Amino acid sequence: MSRSSYDEQLDRLTGALATMSREAVTAIRGAGRALLDVDRDAAEAVIRDDVTLDELRRDVEATIPELLVRQQPVASDLRLVLCAIRISGDLERMGDLAVHIAKIVLMRHPVTVVPPPATAVLTGMAEAAARIAEKVSVVLATRDPLDAMQLGLDDDEVDTAQARLLSQLVSGWPYGVENAIDLALVSRYYERYADHAVNVARQVVYLVTGTIRL
Amino acid sequence: MSRSSYDEQLDRLTGALATMSREAVTAIRGAGRALLDVDRDAAEAVIRDDVTLDELRRDVEATIPELLVRQQPVASDLRLVLCAIRISGDLERMGDLAVHIAKIVLMRHPVTVVPPPATAVLTGMAEAAARIAEKVSVVLATRDPLDAMQLGLDDDEVDTAQARLLSQLVSGWPYGVENAIDLALVSRYYERYADHAVNVARQVVYLVTGTIRL
Repeated sequence: MSRSSYDEQLDRLTGALATMSREAVTAIRGAGRALLDVDRDAAEAVIRDDVTLDELRRDVEATIPELLVRQQPVASDLRLVLCAIRISGDLERMGDLAVHIAKIVLMRHPVTVVPPPATAVLTGMAEAAARIAEKVSVVLATRDPLDAMQLGLDDDEVDTAQARLLSQLVSGWPYGVENAIDLALVSRYYERYADHAVNVARQVVYLVTGTIRL
Repeated sequence: MSRSSYDEQLDRLTGALATMSREAVTAIRGAGRALLDVDRDAAEAVIRDDVTLDELRRDVEATIPELLVRQQPVASDLRLVLCAIRISGDLERMGDLAVHIAKIVLMRHPVTVVPPPATAVLTGMAEAAARIAEKVSVVLATRDPLDAMQLGLDDDEVDTAQARLLSQLVSGWPYGVENAIDLALVSRYYERYADHAVNVARQVVYLVTGTIRL
């Protein structure tokens, strides 16, 4: 393999991660629309499109052994290749979590999962999660470590919203146990989605600085 | 680095994964004891000991770039190194999930999280999760792909138990919404724990056969 095809392979790897991050944004936006607008089509699209993330992850993983053996990358190229394993894993998982939300929506359709007292907090969670995912997408392109580190703040917003929702649910929730469990799980999925996004950002920090941050 | 120190490094990597898998077993057994016996000491031990898994994962990750650059492993050695990234990630996460269960126990202590009607199903989940983790530990040592593939069956047991618990919770659960949410989350943690164990087993299959199974 020539040097230029080596660069091409690294570019393809970066490109695949960029595409995955955009897919993860689309997925969580779709899940939010499905959830808050009781939009069946949006839910089905999230589930259907998840295969793209699965395939991209497989492509990324298949590229890596070959790249390592043929090119023996070092320093930041090596870090990119190793980070790609974890980043693609996190992004694929973000898609799965959006799918989990979409599936709960479909399971209750046409009844909403989000009764009026929960609308504000869930809207906030959905927006915060989508915003984090968009920032991840930007950070993967710019590799700005400061922006990457900032992502933790948006994550706090999701955690706070989750705590607020849980305290609402246990203070005499009038919509039944089933709905309370649905909402507890949905908020858990948003929280995990945000955690994975923060993991991606941490990998970008490692990629740029060479400092491991687990 | 000499060839023998190369072998030593690979052995250390394998050894670290073996230790991690045993720690993951101890963690889920401790979480189960904490949960079912309302055992505060067991819960605190799970939380305290989790740092070992975190450290081992960091060690594994720190070894990998050096190993790749100095030794340029190929074929099954390369697969081992790459799998170690994901396996250590899964095992560390299994520890986190045991910690989540332990934390719920502490939050409600001295009140039990598991009222009598949920004892049977939670006991089953706790046992199935621990059994899967033990098999993972064995499979990491023997690298028997058939045993590794069998793990999916135990995973089904956890999924079935989770579905049974959720249907109990939504059919007039007399212990309140808070307890129902606790139990839904605990069962979710067991389910995820088992999923990560199955992921480790899949990595072992890949390690041995060279066939990617995501």
